[in-house]
Amino acid sequence: MSKRKMVRVVFEPGGTELLVPAGTLLSRAAAAAGYGIETPCGGMGICGKCKVQVNGDPSPLDSNERRLLTEQEISQGFRLACRTKVSSDITVHIPPESLSRIQKILSQGVLRLCEADSRVRKVYCELDQPTLNDERAAFERLADCLAHRQLNLRPNLNVVRTISRTLRDAGYKVTAVMYEDKLIALEPGDTTSHCYGIAYDLGSTTIVGYLLDLATGRELAVSALMNPQTVYGEDLVSRISFASTQEKGGDILRTAAVDALSRIAKALARSAGVRLENVYKATVVGNTCMTHLLLGIDVASLGQSPYVPAVCADITTSAQELDLPISPEAPVVILPNVAGFVGSDLVAVLISVEWEKDGRTRLAVDIGTNGEMALLHNGKTYVCSAAAGPAFEGAGISSGMRGSPGAIDSVVISDDVYISTIENRRPIGICGSGLVDAVAQMLDAGIIDESGRMLSPNEASSLPEAIRRRLIDGERGPEFILVEKRHSGTGKPITLTQTDIRHVQLAKGSIRAAIATLMRTAEVDDEDLSEILLAGAFGNYIRVESAIRIGLIPSVAREKVISIGNAAGTGARLALLCEQEMQTARELARKAEHLELAVSPDYQMELMDRMMFPKVRAPMH
Amino acid sequence: MSKRKMVRVVFEPGGTELLVPAGTLLSRAAAAAGYGIETPCGGMGICGKCKVQVNGDPSPLDSNERRLLTEQEISQGFRLACRTKVSSDITVHIPPESLSRIQKILSQGVLRLCEADSRVRKVYCELDQPTLNDERAAFERLADCLAHRQLNLRPNLNVVRTISRTLRDAGYKVTAVMYEDKLIALEPGDTTSHCYGIAYDLGSTTIVGYLLDLATGRELAVSALMNPQTVYGEDLVSRISFASTQEKGGDILRTAAVDALSRIAKALARSAGVRLENVYKATVVGNTCMTHLLLGIDVASLGQSPYVPAVCADITTSAQELDLPISPEAPVVILPNVAGFVGSDLVAVLISVEWEKDGRTRLAVDIGTNGEMALLHNGKTYVCSAAAGPAFEGAGISSGMRGSPGAIDSVVISDDVYISTIENRRPIGICGSGLVDAVAQMLDAGIIDESGRMLSPNEASSLPEAIRRRLIDGERGPEFILVEKRHSGTGKPITLTQTDIRHVQLAKGSIRAAIATLMRTAEVDDEDLSEILLAGAFGNYIRVESAIRIGLIPSVAREKVISIGNAAGTGARLALLCEQEMQTARELARKAEHLELAVSPDYQMELMDRMMFPKVRAPMH
Repeated sequence: MSKRKMVRVVFEPGGTELLVPAGTLLSRAAAAAGYGIETPCGGMGICGKCKVQVNGDPSPLDSNERRLLTEQEISQGFRLACRTKVSSDITVHIPPESLSRIQKILSQGVLRLCEADSRVRKVYCELDQPTLNDERAAFERLADCLAHRQLNLRPNLNVVRTISRTLRDAGYKVTAVMYEDKLIALEPGDTTSHCYGIAYDLGSTTIVGYLLDLATGRELAVSALMNPQTVYGEDLVSRISFASTQEKGGDILRTAAVDALSRIAKALARSAGVRLENVYKATVVGNTCMTHLLLGIDVASLGQSPYVPAVCADITTSAQELDLPISPEAPVVILPNVAGFVGSDLVAVLISVEWEKDGRTRLAVDIGTNGEMALLHNGKTYVCSAAAGPAFEGAGISSGMRGSPGAIDSVVISDDVYISTIENRRPIGICGSGLVDAVAQMLDAGIIDESGRMLSPNEASSLPEAIRRRLIDGERGPEFILVEKRHSGTGKPITLTQTDIRHVQLAKGSIRAAIATLMRTAEVDDEDLSEILLAGAFGNYIRVESAIRIGLIPSVAREKVISIGNAAGTGARLALLCEQEMQTARELARKAEHLELAVSPDYQMELMDRMMFPKVRAPMH
Repeated sequence: MSKRKMVRVVFEPGGTELLVPAGTLLSRAAAAAGYGIETPCGGMGICGKCKVQVNGDPSPLDSNERRLLTEQEISQGFRLACRTKVSSDITVHIPPESLSRIQKILSQGVLRLCEADSRVRKVYCELDQPTLNDERAAFERLADCLAHRQLNLRPNLNVVRTISRTLRDAGYKVTAVMYEDKLIALEPGDTTSHCYGIAYDLGSTTIVGYLLDLATGRELAVSALMNPQTVYGEDLVSRISFASTQEKGGDILRTAAVDALSRIAKALARSAGVRLENVYKATVVGNTCMTHLLLGIDVASLGQSPYVPAVCADITTSAQELDLPISPEAPVVILPNVAGFVGSDLVAVLISVEWEKDGRTRLAVDIGTNGEMALLHNGKTYVCSAAAGPAFEGAGISSGMRGSPGAIDSVVISDDVYISTIENRRPIGICGSGLVDAVAQMLDAGIIDESGRMLSPNEASSLPEAIRRRLIDGERGPEFILVEKRHSGTGKPITLTQTDIRHVQLAKGSIRAAIATLMRTAEVDDEDLSEILLAGAFGNYIRVESAIRIGLIPSVAREKVISIGNAAGTGARLALLCEQEMQTARELARKAEHLELAVSPDYQMELMDRMMFPKVRAPMH
């Protein structure tokens, strides 16, 4: 292994220094130093949100930077952190607007507020040793010390059980760990600099955990796992059925989820070099079914109409009760749900974008197997969920696949068909964002019409020759060849069938009809929307123009559509750090008006309409 | 079995009717009807506290009643409830001053206050069934119903886990059980009339449980067991040693205590015909070591100087966590301690007598192996404990025994020696109260002098012949025969030896020196004492004149000394019923000044003095 040159990067504000290998991306170095930088485009160099001011000599400007930075900015040393590599020692100043929301809370002078606001607090105490003239009980001795700092302390049986021995063995120099006014741990010596928390995004497919320093808000590690419950049921309905009908089904699913959270906790601790017993708080967001299963709550009622959850209020339990391998008395906070199919993950999305910050009309859409969405208008939030089916996750499509290496993720049709794949591997299938692209391009090329009908080969005489040759008669109607056999990684051509197009129409129709129903209920027109926020992996990678072209989202100006990445995870992190954010989550969950689409005549009508593709090209940027 | 005549008794106030067998004691009938009557003398007919007014024709007046009731009272139909038997239908009016303190709280118009004040509340709710137009979660559906009654409800995971099914199976007609604002149980149908609690007095020798109706305060059953921990160590020191040195010693002792509490709970439920799952709260009082062991708290620090407890603050845990077979989420409240050897049992004694009610100077003494005592003077409470040794429990005395059938419990010496025994069985030994009587009488008769020295047979010429014959030369000095061989139930004479007298001197000296030290610290003289309260079994049966004669307690007028029975149990019951009493317990425990006698030069000096017996006869009634 050749030795790589190491260079020094100093970040301002804060002055944190870091040694990194030459060639490291600035955005990665910043993350490693604990600075979260806004990268809504996922580091593709297209949103221009990650501007930083560099003093030194990094890699040359690339084409994206030339396009997104003004002459004046370039002369002042501004760069895009996601496009710039470090080649020698430099100083990087991160302007407040480029810091991520979590980081902003921390940097805008409220770091101390946040520290108090996780409600976890560590206090180092040097206590007097007991004597016959000072026989205060061990707990009261500690409580008296904290009372001098204006802190009230309540005993906790599990800690009190061993408090006398802990104090004695530590020579009466200990660190008390408090959650609110409860003593949740007691450690020998001064351990105040080790105070961590984990925010979990418990998805039905993927579980992500974030390890944060509760004192500074810095993110120390991220770790993800497939949800092992998938083994017992791919989708929610089959897991609910497993839990309700299988003997100990609920237990099996609960244990699977807990195991995954535990493995993530261990991976996070290992990766950041911290000890699990120094993790004193966790938050969890997820859809209602996922968090019910995690808590061992009976989910049978979620499996049958009217799909009523057991509880919407947030629940606080303990690591010990949940069987997580962090500090046993650590509170584990599950954020509130809104309804059976509108869970705390959507609530977390809302707090991540400061949902009610300026009262403008906003739409947030999180597309998975279920589309969950929220609309804010005139101070009121409307939410609903629509069963989109798995088409956008690549399932149910003849050549569909998840967004993994080899998946077609973008399609251009002009004189011929041009594709790109994830990691530039040989194509083996098509993922959600590729599918949306393909359908949009096929519409524009006239390969399918507004009703979704695909031309038969003999109707295609007006198309360019290369395109026409790709239209074939398949077993069940026309088929369009995206990738010919000789270019395919599977040894077979990759095609879209008429049935695939119908699946896309159903999926996008149900999402779009749900959006339309929300907007109709709130009396909102397309032009009222100040922005459309797309959450989740699909929302992150989709090409906005294509989404508008196929009519998946309302037709608004391109710049009003913002991909917000894993916003649910961001919400979980905010709730971990700030009780105020948790309070906001409670209020949003309680106030939100849930529309039940199953009984909405509007929705049924919209669904018929929105299956169609828009007639005219939507306005483009 | 001959059929016994049943008669009807009506109790006022309240009008409760009861059918009882003819010949039933009025005090027992009152208890069965749920009226607690003051019987500080233990129903011996000597204190006159249990006066009731009878309309009807009960058993004839006995000699005690003639002595304790005035002519006017007799003409008005007043009787002593503990001496009067029912022979035909009667109405009994219980004056407020004869109701026990618990009952007083209930009868003095604050019954509703008390009901709310156990903080346990049952509310019957008829909920709307969920529909597609009303998809509120199960918990929120219930919470909304309670919100209509101005009750805020917090979810509790263990109840929420099954809430959907419980609601559905119950047809949405349920009873919510709340502790404070937490949902602790949910039951089908209307079960509001079943709401019980248990108050435990966890003694190192005996454990007593009281089953109370939390809504009315009525006592439904009492049950007691030997503390099974006795197997692992007779006294506290040996149990601490067992817990600290034996592998899993603490666990073994904890389990033994929990088992006993569980068995008592089952016995109480069976005896009162109630279901254990309808018991929603428990309180526990006991000495610091007992409650630490029950909670699984490490007691090693209680076994070595400076004898520091782990915690003094009150602890609330749950039945499930403690493994008690009552409603799983029922709170179990352990009252606060003052110090390592001044536990919540003494605190409970203090609340049972409204310790600070009128600010007069009072002394309370609870004598067991340890004497624990409290002195109130000028608004300040001083407490201490003294290791009396087991003499007053009959241990360490050559003929000593516990206060069980056949124990000599009183002694009179005049021309000869006259004794009585418990249940009038043939004498087999002497218990604490008999021992105090015997020593007092031997002092008055001149058989022992103020230094505790027993006359030898040849010094006894001035004594009556029958007495003189009882003085013999034993193996280790003089011995006094209380019961001759022919009258003894053991086939051997029952004697007191010089060594026995020395044990009594040590025991009473340490108690009396502790009292003297408290009084010296508080600058209190004998005449300042408005009353001396004697708690516990020993305090209940002891003859006050004898206790004063041997110098066990300060020499005050007979009527100032009041036996208050199992006052610790009464305190536990009050804390169960009334959060206000619990708050008083917290304040008393926190404010009390604990004197550590081991470092008190006063105590050492007093101890030398107080071993002696008082020179002159104390003033008698």
